[in-house]
Amino acid sequence: MILSSAQADPRQDSATNDALQNSPFMRACRREAVPFTPVWLMRQAGRYMPEYRAVRERTTFLELCKRPELAAEVTVTAAERLGVDAAIIFADILLIIEPMGMDLEFAKGEGPVIHNPVRAGADIERLREVEDVSTLDYVFDAIRQTRRALARDLPLIGFAGAPFTLASYMIEGGASKNFVHTKRLMYTDEAAWHEMMSKLARALPRYLNAQVEAGAQAVQLFDSWVGILSANDYRRYVLPHTRRVIKSITPGVPVIHFGTGTAMLLEAMREAGGDCMGLDWRINLSEGWRRIGEDKAVMGNLDPVALFTNRNFVRAEAKRILDEAGGRNGHIFNLGHGILPETPVDNVLALVDAVHELSARK
Amino acid sequence: MILSSAQADPRQDSATNDALQNSPFMRACRREAVPFTPVWLMRQAGRYMPEYRAVRERTTFLELCKRPELAAEVTVTAAERLGVDAAIIFADILLIIEPMGMDLEFAKGEGPVIHNPVRAGADIERLREVEDVSTLDYVFDAIRQTRRALARDLPLIGFAGAPFTLASYMIEGGASKNFVHTKRLMYTDEAAWHEMMSKLARALPRYLNAQVEAGAQAVQLFDSWVGILSANDYRRYVLPHTRRVIKSITPGVPVIHFGTGTAMLLEAMREAGGDCMGLDWRINLSEGWRRIGEDKAVMGNLDPVALFTNRNFVRAEAKRILDEAGGRNGHIFNLGHGILPETPVDNVLALVDAVHELSARK
Repeated sequence: MILSSAQADPRQDSATNDALQNSPFMRACRREAVPFTPVWLMRQAGRYMPEYRAVRERTTFLELCKRPELAAEVTVTAAERLGVDAAIIFADILLIIEPMGMDLEFAKGEGPVIHNPVRAGADIERLREVEDVSTLDYVFDAIRQTRRALARDLPLIGFAGAPFTLASYMIEGGASKNFVHTKRLMYTDEAAWHEMMSKLARALPRYLNAQVEAGAQAVQLFDSWVGILSANDYRRYVLPHTRRVIKSITPGVPVIHFGTGTAMLLEAMREAGGDCMGLDWRINLSEGWRRIGEDKAVMGNLDPVALFTNRNFVRAEAKRILDEAGGRNGHIFNLGHGILPETPVDNVLALVDAVHELSARK
Repeated sequence: MILSSAQADPRQDSATNDALQNSPFMRACRREAVPFTPVWLMRQAGRYMPEYRAVRERTTFLELCKRPELAAEVTVTAAERLGVDAAIIFADILLIIEPMGMDLEFAKGEGPVIHNPVRAGADIERLREVEDVSTLDYVFDAIRQTRRALARDLPLIGFAGAPFTLASYMIEGGASKNFVHTKRLMYTDEAAWHEMMSKLARALPRYLNAQVEAGAQAVQLFDSWVGILSANDYRRYVLPHTRRVIKSITPGVPVIHFGTGTAMLLEAMREAGGDCMGLDWRINLSEGWRRIGEDKAVMGNLDPVALFTNRNFVRAEAKRILDEAGGRNGHIFNLGHGILPETPVDNVLALVDAVHELSARK
């Protein structure tokens, strides 16, 4: 039993590791030649998918994150059902804030609610340093179980929220429109702000590297709300902390650095780091890639709403984006943000087929 | 009585007209030299101001728009209380959609709700052509009453939503996060989309020019939600219609063309037209102005959330933005979006003072 379990561990198995490292997704992260453009979809295990809803009916969202066998099941099912080129572990960008002392709940239909938001310097002092990530063992277990169930050449992505997006949730107490509390703290108590961001920037690499240790081949930092900042503010309040996280990821593990509404931030986000930069639908892929620099891979950039149309439109959009990428090495096809709950599954399947077919290198 | 009323009409009074046209705001719209940078604030007559709340307590939002004496009162009070360099008529960007057949309500705490949203081509055919804008006489009356009560050299701005932002409200039935219905219609029934946008683009100049006729010196088109589109989509689905509106405004009347989250759209919005382009806080004013072109005036670009801090921060931000403008002719100071409801009035007053003082030409 012990032997067979060790053999099933991909880190112990160099043939498995080679298969993973030679997958189109991993090759694209390193800007190497690929037989076709790899595609996966943010939130691919989500409410739009009947198989997911069936599992989700039996539990709450947070419980689903915390039950490794269920998290692994929805992760693997989504990847297999769609035929995508990477799986992403089923989890939430906010899980890391629980061991920091945040009282996190996913209220029905309202998204995340944090019952004890951070509002002043004293709250920040009370935030716990996450020295030991073992309270997040359920994520690492889910990764191990997923890795065992997943095709041996299909890479698995680990992830977390980026420091700014996490801080904004912790301060606002949930989703926000104008980020008044976040910016007020940032602007009026810069020392406290940097202390908070530093705590996040120390916790995140431990968490992400433990995901790698458990079996993730790449990690993604979600800075979903960073597009509410100017480049000046990004450089002053965010960049040093995000850079610190990215620099501390296990060498050789590709980091995807993702944000939305970042048309004014691309150069600054590039400076913060990442092997592959996310581009939402608001910016043309070719222009975004030029500004980021061709020494980076890019991920994107279909509008999630395009999936609410029909197969023909989806295919035309896939072609347009692939044409923008122009067959250059280093493009990972994805949406510009997560799949929306009511998305028709057929259109998602049509997208994956279209990307594979239209991008096949002759 | 008839004579005295005619004399009070600014269009009949060339000294008044000269005073208005020589005001810092109007001179800045034309990129002429000014004694100081003019400043006004979007939604300056709003809930943050106790004088506004006192009037608003007696009526609903929509009724307040429709009672010219009250609309004039809040317009004038806000301009006088703040000491700004332009007034903007109290109204809503959506009023024009009522005579098109939309059942508009402002639900408490929820913003606009349209009870009969447009979802398909047949709904669009039923939209009424607004040949005659007399159902909006209450706006023109409010402008006339405001003009009579306002300092004779203080310009008054008329406004409406731009075609895209109006269409998105009409289709979504209210505010939206992802604009799924709007984009689905745009992408799957382009002919119907253009028909709808054309109806809006025919109605808007009639409405805006009647505001000018009633006594507005400039007009602003609010394309508040256009930042959810890529430049490709903007050019294809929006630009021709916005251009048509702007081209049809009474010659000599400056048009302010405003949007938010438009860092990827500035060049395309410039093509659509306008004498003065709005810049939100996400983009540096100097960079935005360079991209728009120095043959245009610009308006902006303080983050509305900066007003939640303190006088010192507000003053430093005013200085930073004025430095970016570098004393060039054609900068109108404003926020990057409307004042938020809980904004402290003292910080707003401090901003107006700071802009006047720091920008005084030696």
